[in-house]
Amino acid sequence: MMPAELWHESGRYESIGSELVRFEDRNRSKMVLGMTHEEAAVQLVKDYGQSYQQYPFMIYQIQRKFRDEARPRAGMIRVREFTMKDAYSFHTSQEDLEQYYKKCYDAYNRIFGRVGLPEVITVASDSGMMGGSLSHEYMLLNEVGEDSIVLCTECDYRANMEAAESIVENIPKKPVEELRMIETPHCKTIEDVCTFLNSNAETSCKAVVYQRNEDDSFVVAFVRGDYEVNETKLRNYIGAELHPAEIAEDSPLVAGYIGPYCISDKVTYVLDVSLRGIDNLVAGANREGYHYTGLNIERDLENVTYADISKVKENGICPCCRKHALTIKRGIEVGNIFQLGTKYTKSMNMQYVDKEGAKHYPIMGCYGIGVGRLAASICEAKHDAYGPIWPISVAPWEVHICCIRPDDEETKRVADSLYDELMKRKLEVIYDDRDGIRGGQMFADADLLGVPIRVVVSPRNLKEGKVEITTRDKSVTMSVDILQAPEEIEKLKDRLTQSLA
Amino acid sequence: MMPAELWHESGRYESIGSELVRFEDRNRSKMVLGMTHEEAAVQLVKDYGQSYQQYPFMIYQIQRKFRDEARPRAGMIRVREFTMKDAYSFHTSQEDLEQYYKKCYDAYNRIFGRVGLPEVITVASDSGMMGGSLSHEYMLLNEVGEDSIVLCTECDYRANMEAAESIVENIPKKPVEELRMIETPHCKTIEDVCTFLNSNAETSCKAVVYQRNEDDSFVVAFVRGDYEVNETKLRNYIGAELHPAEIAEDSPLVAGYIGPYCISDKVTYVLDVSLRGIDNLVAGANREGYHYTGLNIERDLENVTYADISKVKENGICPCCRKHALTIKRGIEVGNIFQLGTKYTKSMNMQYVDKEGAKHYPIMGCYGIGVGRLAASICEAKHDAYGPIWPISVAPWEVHICCIRPDDEETKRVADSLYDELMKRKLEVIYDDRDGIRGGQMFADADLLGVPIRVVVSPRNLKEGKVEITTRDKSVTMSVDILQAPEEIEKLKDRLTQSLA
Repeated sequence: MMPAELWHESGRYESIGSELVRFEDRNRSKMVLGMTHEEAAVQLVKDYGQSYQQYPFMIYQIQRKFRDEARPRAGMIRVREFTMKDAYSFHTSQEDLEQYYKKCYDAYNRIFGRVGLPEVITVASDSGMMGGSLSHEYMLLNEVGEDSIVLCTECDYRANMEAAESIVENIPKKPVEELRMIETPHCKTIEDVCTFLNSNAETSCKAVVYQRNEDDSFVVAFVRGDYEVNETKLRNYIGAELHPAEIAEDSPLVAGYIGPYCISDKVTYVLDVSLRGIDNLVAGANREGYHYTGLNIERDLENVTYADISKVKENGICPCCRKHALTIKRGIEVGNIFQLGTKYTKSMNMQYVDKEGAKHYPIMGCYGIGVGRLAASICEAKHDAYGPIWPISVAPWEVHICCIRPDDEETKRVADSLYDELMKRKLEVIYDDRDGIRGGQMFADADLLGVPIRVVVSPRNLKEGKVEITTRDKSVTMSVDILQAPEEIEKLKDRLTQSLA
Repeated sequence: MMPAELWHESGRYESIGSELVRFEDRNRSKMVLGMTHEEAAVQLVKDYGQSYQQYPFMIYQIQRKFRDEARPRAGMIRVREFTMKDAYSFHTSQEDLEQYYKKCYDAYNRIFGRVGLPEVITVASDSGMMGGSLSHEYMLLNEVGEDSIVLCTECDYRANMEAAESIVENIPKKPVEELRMIETPHCKTIEDVCTFLNSNAETSCKAVVYQRNEDDSFVVAFVRGDYEVNETKLRNYIGAELHPAEIAEDSPLVAGYIGPYCISDKVTYVLDVSLRGIDNLVAGANREGYHYTGLNIERDLENVTYADISKVKENGICPCCRKHALTIKRGIEVGNIFQLGTKYTKSMNMQYVDKEGAKHYPIMGCYGIGVGRLAASICEAKHDAYGPIWPISVAPWEVHICCIRPDDEETKRVADSLYDELMKRKLEVIYDDRDGIRGGQMFADADLLGVPIRVVVSPRNLKEGKVEITTRDKSVTMSVDILQAPEEIEKLKDRLTQSLA
């Protein structure tokens, strides 16, 4: 919980929607639940960071956050209340931030490798509500993910759908037609019009209508008929929060027949780059039951500018290598890093004095990992039909001892002393010596816990003076002498740990 | 955050005041911030605990809570947002709960011993908003505490002021006087009346007026003139939440002249045990400017019952050994345990099936330690003028290496390798190798961090092949050979740890 005051200073009390929980405490002071902590971080170090000599510095916490998500989903993947590791760095120059950002970028890659997810990739991302310029997301490619990741199969290009540049090439079509208004009764969708006119989506102009949150004024996004609007890009381009429009009877728009030519000047419209270079376009005529054909945007409209407000498509053109090689995958965002600039230090008036006595706003970076989501993501990526296969670095225990038949005195004695010895060696051990549980049940429970090293002590093994050591991923199974067991287990633990380094 | 629904079930949504933060989420669902987790615990195990075979069991968490306290104070001692270790146990019989409760009682004593506060005492306490019958508080006697603890200097009796039984003996005074109404102009306080009538507080009847929160109806507490009302006891006796009264012009009470004889039947009044056996009492006459003298409660009033609603006084009578040996100290509550009975399982309809197939409500216990408050309490109890003296069990690090003159190559090399060796031995080490800091400054910073073992590596010590080892409490200072240092430090650590066991 923190005072709303801080969020007023940064301007986010107003700019953030209902994800931010707002309420009043017993003294009628306005409060919010921390959904992210840039404001709190700046407030905390405002006094400390008054001289250039303190810079650069970084603070971090591992702490609970609350975001009132519209759609919590997929277990721990997207929850409203969650634990996050977040860090905030402060710098006196953009160069210094960039150096530090690079260090954090690399450190994050090492972290994901060490927790057992070396396959996590970084993608360029939209900075969203954080503000700032450059940012990266750490993505685990996985079907349960809710992010769309754009990857190039021919080069290293990777971006979140929200940030992926849309490049569309339209082939000129001769002869260029005249602009004609044509009656298209009951044709309210692209499909209707294409069928009716025997045209196709690639030469149609689709209208998607939004309203600004602040005053409900209309924003119409025009994209090529077979493209979708990327709402994040549109929002960034317009510079305002938007919501899907409700078009009333008395509105200046004619639902189903909206086009850029002769559109009401009461609405803002945006032309997507996918419309560039189409010679004979079909578009709504802003009149019930009519469309234009032969619309040539640059010939027929004034002051034409195109903006990138559409979603990249499968097989689209890579902005990096220019090949038709883009593919789209689902991903879980397990971490993100942002170059924040001076958005927060300026709005909250945090300043330092430089060598010459001049005042400046420090430049910030921020760095976050969702701890619970990361655990869930590891589980998604590392499991089999019987349960999770925890990488040893993040496993709740390193070793799981199954004592089969603890009612047998010798078995219990050996298992007990193995447990003691492993604890003495500072291994993390869970010890199952439940009475009256059959081996099969005990192994099933062990699989469900997913501890990386399982050690079975049983009367049958003991007959040969052995215990059985298995890894949860079934890659190692060995029978070792009782006296060698602690040594072998420790070695195995070291090997598993090193494999993640 | 949790749904208000759960708190409606238990009835605490209504019964708890503004300490419970209530608000609505984006879907207009009523939510609360968890200030304690009985409801959540019952909800969590409702399904699990359906058969007697699962019992007894206990669940625990270490987690953030929020209480919208009217008076946060004393740093971490009383804050609104805090971390708590809380546990909830479930039983099929009162005997089983009691056995378990005793185990927890002992375990808590061991915990406080191990964190370095063996002086923590247990006191019987009022169960307050938790409901249930028996409960204990773990108290650190300390001037900054906000609880009043009643202790007997002659026996083992210990109780929180809120729960301490008040025993008052009044000596009969002959001759017994007649009841007489006397004019006492402008005598609105006990002092005024005593001066005016030349009587004393011990034979005066003091009225303290409250109103019920639910309907503002009046409750008058009468205590002997030299006693104070214990609001917790009064609240428990009345069975309702109360607040200090505002007496308006048209109320049935005459402020300053309220007494039990002929009081309006629109008010509830309670006679404290301190009034029992006073023969000639002075009390308000419920008439502006008049008091009664010679009031003999049992002679003059009907259906007299006394209730214990007063605060124990210094030198009061011990309810245990009956000696005038009570003393009152300030204490910080660092933990508490409660026998909750079936308050929550009943109201939330959690049931289990016994061997015979009959359904019952499980019996609960709960057990809590305020983690942050405990840390602050340790600091209050263990510090000197230079900073905290952390017991090794809870110290942020076990060893603090000060490398004086890290610019000296040999000094730095020795300090580095000592650090590496201690880390290899799995000690927790903080290493101060800041450049350009003088020894005095480094030592002052070390004292302020309060790490129990300080090791100084300096060119001067190294000349003799030694390093200097000191404990934060200054009880140990030794100069040891460099090669012996890791061994000695480890031994010292073990000694400090064992001293807390």
